[in-house]
Amino acid sequence: VREARRPDSAFWVDPEAVVDGRARLSPEESHHLVDVFRAVPGTPFQAIDGAGHTYECVLESIEGSVAIGRVLISSLERGELPVPITLLVGLPDARPAETVVEHAVPLGAILIDFVACERSDRPPLGQSRLTRLERIARAATKQSLRSRLVSLRSSSSLEEALSGFGPAVGFYADPAGELDVRISSNRTQHPVVLVIGPPGGFTEGERQRLDQWRFLPISLGPSRLTTETAALTLLATARNKLL
Amino acid sequence: VREARRPDSAFWVDPEAVVDGRARLSPEESHHLVDVFRAVPGTPFQAIDGAGHTYECVLESIEGSVAIGRVLISSLERGELPVPITLLVGLPDARPAETVVEHAVPLGAILIDFVACERSDRPPLGQSRLTRLERIARAATKQSLRSRLVSLRSSSSLEEALSGFGPAVGFYADPAGELDVRISSNRTQHPVVLVIGPPGGFTEGERQRLDQWRFLPISLGPSRLTTETAALTLLATARNKLL
Repeated sequence: VREARRPDSAFWVDPEAVVDGRARLSPEESHHLVDVFRAVPGTPFQAIDGAGHTYECVLESIEGSVAIGRVLISSLERGELPVPITLLVGLPDARPAETVVEHAVPLGAILIDFVACERSDRPPLGQSRLTRLERIARAATKQSLRSRLVSLRSSSSLEEALSGFGPAVGFYADPAGELDVRISSNRTQHPVVLVIGPPGGFTEGERQRLDQWRFLPISLGPSRLTTETAALTLLATARNKLL
Repeated sequence: VREARRPDSAFWVDPEAVVDGRARLSPEESHHLVDVFRAVPGTPFQAIDGAGHTYECVLESIEGSVAIGRVLISSLERGELPVPITLLVGLPDARPAETVVEHAVPLGAILIDFVACERSDRPPLGQSRLTRLERIARAATKQSLRSRLVSLRSSSSLEEALSGFGPAVGFYADPAGELDVRISSNRTQHPVVLVIGPPGGFTEGERQRLDQWRFLPISLGPSRLTTETAALTLLATARNKLL
């Protein structure tokens, strides 16, 4: 006897795989739905496309290795913040980078750039490392019931990372900064950019560039934080102002 | 040729090992200072006792396996928050519990209680697990340049965890709660207690108990957070109000 339970996490569906009110899951996602969650025709589930859509579905049929859901309700931007937040994180070791992705994705970051800063002492991440981080991001997106997949990058300098932005409201972690992130969702239509130094911190030149960009320094308190703890703290604090 | 560099992390010294302006490090900490950081007599270093003291020292002598520092400056409560924050975290798996300790210690938590909530589905942590978490806490304390060691506990119910407190300003993570933690360091002389449900969340009974204690529900935003991400988010947000 197979017992169906409603999966409590969302399933991934590619945007182009939703046609005429039917969502066709990949073989991997189909396996997860049918074999792990024991879904049978009639079992409800949620699917997200990573581009802002959430689909409330019921499993309609299973064709070979492909589960097909009928879409009952489609919604936009579910689980997303009202203002997009980007994180520029001075490139740390492999494990801290994964920690940042694991926690920053549920917290709503829309873009994370692991920036090879002057004190990062290593080249930007290559494609295989980014692909690994993207897998972590995808799992966290499904688990957190967001509807947009974060973009992951690794710029070769802070200058390169900053040059990708138009008008933005920016803050960077700095022990000598202010104690409060002064933003509110009705005060900005610009994206919010949060910048955290690599282990060892920003160089004076990098700090000057951030000042020239009119990014504001924010102190994260009296103790010393690792790059990953600082990233999550600044994100949690800024995000709270935008809810 | 041994080259001395100033260690960028603090060394542990037991409170009773600081006598007459001399700090005697344990063999393990002495090894770290002398063999890893290649300290020689005259090398400056910092020591913390976990009870609120920070000692600026210079290495004076090495007697067998014990490094002895001369205390130049002693300070109190360095790296500590102005108001103590306690975290009650619904008991999660082993790895998420370690994640909470790794990040909540630099963020200033003074007590973390991993509470076996009704939906935790497991008994409270035993002594060996607490000892392992305490090792992580000690390393994070030294790294973050705090001066107090967090206390770690594991209560067998939320009721038991709450009964340890006198007057407190309490908040708990709840999707239906308010969006802002309303506290400020000049508005409370009471300890701040933050409560996060286990995976699966609080039961209705537990939520009622929190309401009876006049703890306020706080929403952490539109996405679903794991216990460990929620704990760090609520801590980062509340802490920011107290700086």
